[in-house]
Amino acid sequence: MEYQKALRQLIEEFKTNFMPSVSLDLAIFGFHDGQLKVLLLRWKGTDDWCLPGGRIRHEENLEVAAYRSLQQRTGLREIFLQQFHTFGDVMRYTNFSKQETMAKLGLPEDITEELVSRDVSVGYYALVEFANAVPTPDFFTEECRWWDIDQIPPLLFDHNDMIKLALKTLRRQLSYQPIGYNLLPDKFTMPDIQQLYETILGQTLDRRNFQKRMLGYNILERLEERKTGGAHKAPYLYRFDKEKYEKALAEEILFVG
Amino acid sequence: MEYQKALRQLIEEFKTNFMPSVSLDLAIFGFHDGQLKVLLLRWKGTDDWCLPGGRIRHEENLEVAAYRSLQQRTGLREIFLQQFHTFGDVMRYTNFSKQETMAKLGLPEDITEELVSRDVSVGYYALVEFANAVPTPDFFTEECRWWDIDQIPPLLFDHNDMIKLALKTLRRQLSYQPIGYNLLPDKFTMPDIQQLYETILGQTLDRRNFQKRMLGYNILERLEERKTGGAHKAPYLYRFDKEKYEKALAEEILFVG
Repeated sequence: MEYQKALRQLIEEFKTNFMPSVSLDLAIFGFHDGQLKVLLLRWKGTDDWCLPGGRIRHEENLEVAAYRSLQQRTGLREIFLQQFHTFGDVMRYTNFSKQETMAKLGLPEDITEELVSRDVSVGYYALVEFANAVPTPDFFTEECRWWDIDQIPPLLFDHNDMIKLALKTLRRQLSYQPIGYNLLPDKFTMPDIQQLYETILGQTLDRRNFQKRMLGYNILERLEERKTGGAHKAPYLYRFDKEKYEKALAEEILFVG
Repeated sequence: MEYQKALRQLIEEFKTNFMPSVSLDLAIFGFHDGQLKVLLLRWKGTDDWCLPGGRIRHEENLEVAAYRSLQQRTGLREIFLQQFHTFGDVMRYTNFSKQETMAKLGLPEDITEELVSRDVSVGYYALVEFANAVPTPDFFTEECRWWDIDQIPPLLFDHNDMIKLALKTLRRQLSYQPIGYNLLPDKFTMPDIQQLYETILGQTLDRRNFQKRMLGYNILERLEERKTGGAHKAPYLYRFDKEKYEKALAEEILFVG
């Protein structure tokens, strides 16, 4: 079979050019107009979905491999990508029915063993404007698309746990680092950024407290213009002070007794 | 040489029983009486120090391997151990002068190559009462001891960076999770726990704000006794409400707009 031959070649390439026993997985969250989604891949000839992943070349930094994989699946570069956890349970592939899936693909046992021996996998998450991404399947998959965060099906491997922890870490991040650059237009209103936070957190926030807290970070510059020219009540426009934003990202907002 | 023979045996054992290309390193922070220290190992026959590390057995969960390594170096079990980052730069071993160190050890080139090819290493940190630990060197090292956090020498590999990031993550953790269980006596005063926070943060905190924030977490139970029997101004004793503490650990204290 053509597919088996290509697969054997790919596995040979893995063995030659990539680090053994370690891989990476990407929880790519998409934000757009109040919706939060995650990018999933469907394995060829199956109804089984999983996260995009990748491997690390021998002469490649781990982080570079993660960015390369992100770009291959979305076409996007220079996106905020954050390592969040490394997964290394012996049983992390147990919800994956080797025989069943491999039989569907017509794969012999030796290939199956190669593909599903336990890797330690480094998890990264990204947050992107999903209108800008071009979802692209990889060799093993035939469909790549966005799923609503609350409609994710049971996934292959430990990928449901990965998404859960990635989202928890992303939400935690909001409490000590600013977020929004690259996700909001250059000029935006306070309701715009509040909607971004609410979408990620999955809950509504008090308007006044949110505004107070956001201004307290001292990373926003209020412009002398409002969203629409005429109306008196139209909200002010803001933009990020890039220098202060970068500083807040690096220094974090820590415990202050 | 006896040492070379033992080393070759060890490398053979690594190849047979442990995952290739992935390892782990431990930043073990020791807290005691207002001091913060970190546990370092000195390589045999050198003045070169590094963090304790470990490898993962084929049939062993990553986290179990980390706990096993922690126990081997300190004798401690059931300690708070937290994964914080996975290090995978191609050049992470470049500050390590292979020739120099290996020459001191009288090691041939093939062993040197085996020992210092790039691994992806999963970093964990632990926080322990250092009076309880029994520092124990491993096969490669002949000394294992505590170093003051502000007197750490230039270390092998990327281990200075590891400590820096571990400490940053530990400090960040204070802003969304309680800390102190296993580090403070069963009953303690507000000044005791403030000193723990100040030691970890490396800065003094305002007494009133600290108390307000700490009580706001709703994890402390104030006892009907004070530290010393007589004095009127003696501070109240507190203890952790274990159930609420565990809940706060799991749920975290997140962004509240």
